[in-house]
Amino acid sequence: MQQWLDEYEERDWQTVDDGTVRYALIGLGWWTKDVAIPAIERSDLGEVSVLVSSSTEKAERIADENGVERGISYDEYHEGAASDAYDAVYIGTPNAYHLEYAETAADLGKAVLCEKPMEATVERAEAMVEACEDADVPLMIAYRMQTEPAVRRARELIEEGFIGEPATVQGHNSQRLLEMIPDEDQWRLDPDVSGYGTSVMDLGIYSINTARYLLGRDPVAVESRMSSLHDAFEDVPDERSSSLLQLEGDVRMVTTTSQNAQTDTQLKLTGTEGQIELDPAFHGDVALRLTKGDLVVDVDHREFDAEREVLELFDYFSDRVLGDAEIGPDGRHGLEDMRIIRAIHESAETGEPVELR
Amino acid sequence: MQQWLDEYEERDWQTVDDGTVRYALIGLGWWTKDVAIPAIERSDLGEVSVLVSSSTEKAERIADENGVERGISYDEYHEGAASDAYDAVYIGTPNAYHLEYAETAADLGKAVLCEKPMEATVERAEAMVEACEDADVPLMIAYRMQTEPAVRRARELIEEGFIGEPATVQGHNSQRLLEMIPDEDQWRLDPDVSGYGTSVMDLGIYSINTARYLLGRDPVAVESRMSSLHDAFEDVPDERSSSLLQLEGDVRMVTTTSQNAQTDTQLKLTGTEGQIELDPAFHGDVALRLTKGDLVVDVDHREFDAEREVLELFDYFSDRVLGDAEIGPDGRHGLEDMRIIRAIHESAETGEPVELR
Repeated sequence: MQQWLDEYEERDWQTVDDGTVRYALIGLGWWTKDVAIPAIERSDLGEVSVLVSSSTEKAERIADENGVERGISYDEYHEGAASDAYDAVYIGTPNAYHLEYAETAADLGKAVLCEKPMEATVERAEAMVEACEDADVPLMIAYRMQTEPAVRRARELIEEGFIGEPATVQGHNSQRLLEMIPDEDQWRLDPDVSGYGTSVMDLGIYSINTARYLLGRDPVAVESRMSSLHDAFEDVPDERSSSLLQLEGDVRMVTTTSQNAQTDTQLKLTGTEGQIELDPAFHGDVALRLTKGDLVVDVDHREFDAEREVLELFDYFSDRVLGDAEIGPDGRHGLEDMRIIRAIHESAETGEPVELR
Repeated sequence: MQQWLDEYEERDWQTVDDGTVRYALIGLGWWTKDVAIPAIERSDLGEVSVLVSSSTEKAERIADENGVERGISYDEYHEGAASDAYDAVYIGTPNAYHLEYAETAADLGKAVLCEKPMEATVERAEAMVEACEDADVPLMIAYRMQTEPAVRRARELIEEGFIGEPATVQGHNSQRLLEMIPDEDQWRLDPDVSGYGTSVMDLGIYSINTARYLLGRDPVAVESRMSSLHDAFEDVPDERSSSLLQLEGDVRMVTTTSQNAQTDTQLKLTGTEGQIELDPAFHGDVALRLTKGDLVVDVDHREFDAEREVLELFDYFSDRVLGDAEIGPDGRHGLEDMRIIRAIHESAETGEPVELR
């Protein structure tokens, strides 16, 4: 136990000790400004050298405020401006713009760390994978749960048989989007920019990807129902959603999401011999509960938060860019989530189950 | 708050202060012996006067051990033995035998408290309702969550708008049946006796009925997938199950069950303005969590357990038998759960959604 706790937050993935990846951050929303920039500032393996935004003025102003060398516009980025000043890009724009920035990065030979979901549609996500593979640049999707220590320890325990055979999985992710971003015209409610919908793309993806990662099993069939009641959600089908996912090996998974409900996240995996629960699960404040028989163990980080999770994410990517180790959540891994989400939306539209393989 | 806590465990349903209902308990499994008898012993409104079992000898022996007046066999019960000694029957036998005992009770003019699920099939449950209605005897289904104070307080809060508009519901109920009852030939694994299956009938019914009670909304459509992997479950389809239930008003509900997994129960209702969670939910140790914005309130009983829940259940029924007030979970209410469970099994068999209304 002492050893387990001592090594709990250890970076079991680290292969490189020195070197620096210089990042261009593309898309300066609150997440990039308030979480990603401060996170990378704490890193030994990465630094922010360029900020990319809608106008040179805005990019330069925010660069200046944050002690970053260069600020350039999206157009300048596409033209190759400042390309000597960065080694990798982080794409934190709205979903439907990911591809164009990834394509330019591939053309410029830069490594790509792209926010999830990968893109607005499966086809555009496929184009991103092709562009990066053709140019031979690393592509990683920013699933920060996969470098969250609680999730990695949970995965090891599952691999070692702690829960026995996995039987059921429950995932939930809800938030009050209009309270977080008080704008009814925001991009997450515009299917041209967000893609298939809003709550599964933005929230459900956490339950789906984290379960895939923890169990090493993918969905083989999905069923889903969704609805939008609030006026602001009239263009997207899934203000709220519920889905059944049949994972490989007859594991029965259910998920619920809402972009217009009390904030709450949870992921619970129940097996023949035990249970692992993350509650809260997805917003940087992960608490791990291990149950076996009548014994319950609660493990909580006191100093982990979204910024620390993002530091782990960036350092993992920096490690992979600087060294030779494989990227876990690569483009093809992210593409699978896009196919799952498309199937969930197709099932909700047709009212029929959709087979995935 | 002080008033709310003072009244938390108060019997808001009580209409009668004195009188005694004398019970015949039918079916002497561990639940009846270890929980129901001790519970009724604590009651002011009820007493156990007759025990009914497979043989006169067994019934008399257990009656003797528990200080109960009479012990009779199932056959003697059907012949009307000791019918002057009891006013009501509690049916705690395997599912497929509920109907015959209820019919005899109706013939004898006795009130009926019947365990859930009502019977093995919808048709037999319908016959039970008819028999009791024709004889004009009270029929109640033993949903003890409906007289659990935490559930009643949660229902009031929902009615008062605490969670706003309900959006999603998650229910889970799992246990290790073969560890609780180490017998691979037990009745819960025999579809001739248990009915449509094992885990939805025995465990899923808690999530379904409690959500119906809390929200006052019934399912309008269900989808389900289930599977049995362990040899002992080869005759029943649902060692484990997952279901989507669309409740009235576009509430998205998901449930998971397993009869062969780590014991765990949970029910979580998330609304536009808040959340109510029961965790644990269903085994007598209910804990209530109320969340609104970033405020979390946990309420736990220190002295409530399964026995206390059963005392509340019996006293509620005694109150209704002695007085004139309506029975909440009556036969028609229980029949709706039977129809929902049949639809869940039909959906799992056909792979198609099943509409309920």
